[in-house]
Amino acid sequence: MYINWVGTYLNVPKIPVKVVTFDEIVEWSRKLAEKIKESNWQPDVIVAVARGGYVPARLLCDWLGVSDLLSVQVVHWPSAAQIAEKAYVKYPINVDLSGKRVLVVDDIVDTGDSIELAKKSLEECCRPKEVKTAALQVITSVAKFMPDFYAVEVREWIWFAYQWNAVEDATGFIMKIVKETGKTEWCLDELIQAHLEWYGSEYVEKRFGYMLYALDMLVKRGYIKLSKCLASPNIAVR
Amino acid sequence: MYINWVGTYLNVPKIPVKVVTFDEIVEWSRKLAEKIKESNWQPDVIVAVARGGYVPARLLCDWLGVSDLLSVQVVHWPSAAQIAEKAYVKYPINVDLSGKRVLVVDDIVDTGDSIELAKKSLEECCRPKEVKTAALQVITSVAKFMPDFYAVEVREWIWFAYQWNAVEDATGFIMKIVKETGKTEWCLDELIQAHLEWYGSEYVEKRFGYMLYALDMLVKRGYIKLSKCLASPNIAVR
Repeated sequence: MYINWVGTYLNVPKIPVKVVTFDEIVEWSRKLAEKIKESNWQPDVIVAVARGGYVPARLLCDWLGVSDLLSVQVVHWPSAAQIAEKAYVKYPINVDLSGKRVLVVDDIVDTGDSIELAKKSLEECCRPKEVKTAALQVITSVAKFMPDFYAVEVREWIWFAYQWNAVEDATGFIMKIVKETGKTEWCLDELIQAHLEWYGSEYVEKRFGYMLYALDMLVKRGYIKLSKCLASPNIAVR
Repeated sequence: MYINWVGTYLNVPKIPVKVVTFDEIVEWSRKLAEKIKESNWQPDVIVAVARGGYVPARLLCDWLGVSDLLSVQVVHWPSAAQIAEKAYVKYPINVDLSGKRVLVVDDIVDTGDSIELAKKSLEECCRPKEVKTAALQVITSVAKFMPDFYAVEVREWIWFAYQWNAVEDATGFIMKIVKETGKTEWCLDELIQAHLEWYGSEYVEKRFGYMLYALDMLVKRGYIKLSKCLASPNIAVR
């Protein structure tokens, strides 16, 4: 199949992004809860992996009728640092969970090191009876640790743009373009065109407001300079 | 204005319920973040009051660019017990937050005792530099403690049906009818009619699926018996 250069960047972005709606999150958490119920295992406590697990964990509490909700925060050393990018528990829990069945919840399992570490830290800190893990999505092609339960299997790596990360995504996406091109001054149409090329049309259409919000913030902070568009580009968005 | 008996229960339910969409939650959290920014105060850490504060807290992290997210769980002694209904911290935090500005977040401030207690427990446990409080909504007619920031003022008490509590609401609403009428056997049309009378048409229309889901669960657990409808009722919903 022949794809011209317009088709190339409209259809095959450099970084594939799927914008996830809140309805999908509700449906996936319902499906995840069903799988847990079907296994005849009922948690007494749910522990969210901060920050990604917060919304799924709260929805699972509702679907499974669980009142007790806590969180542990797992973060990664920034890869910019001269040490290996490694997950560590920034905010552990320090409560007695003896006799309790604990479900650790995250949004997406990529390599799996965050949720695995959260599980280990709970087993060490809190004397639970049992700890199981659950995630809305698992990228099976890269996961080294598989959660006990998950709703959706993702075969190829893709960036899932969750609603609760919309500003951070929009900011990071702009800065990625700025850094990798080395170009700090952009006109809006040019930047939109670059976004179509890098992240695809679905992202640009559904998150256009967030893109503008993030852009405004980055301009104010001096990370990017916005100039007037001189020539009319191929794609005009107003 | 004359309201006939049909109008009475269709328009003025016993318990006024407003179903909150996720778009409203996103918009309120954005508005809340704007108010915090306008005050020139930026938190280093966000602490969600479990369980209600989980979704708003995660969204605020995004709007405010806050990475550190923790939670404390505040619960109320059940009013059924022979002790006063009083809030207490079930799962406190035990980490060092010295030098940090902390924002405590909840969904709605009713009397305000939960968020006030969460704030106090943080000041006692964790040596923060400063603790401020924020909620999406405040029912000002009943609030004894006002949060530092809020997005929406509610003047009259109303039940806000958040998406993350949909199953619990549906279950509680059915059981409230069962308990207060003393009637444990219902036909579906009758139960729908009772829901219209108690909670209004907006709730029944928007949460019909959850109502059926909760009903099925309660039937299986033996809390309610579902029988075939004999006579055709005034309102038929199929």
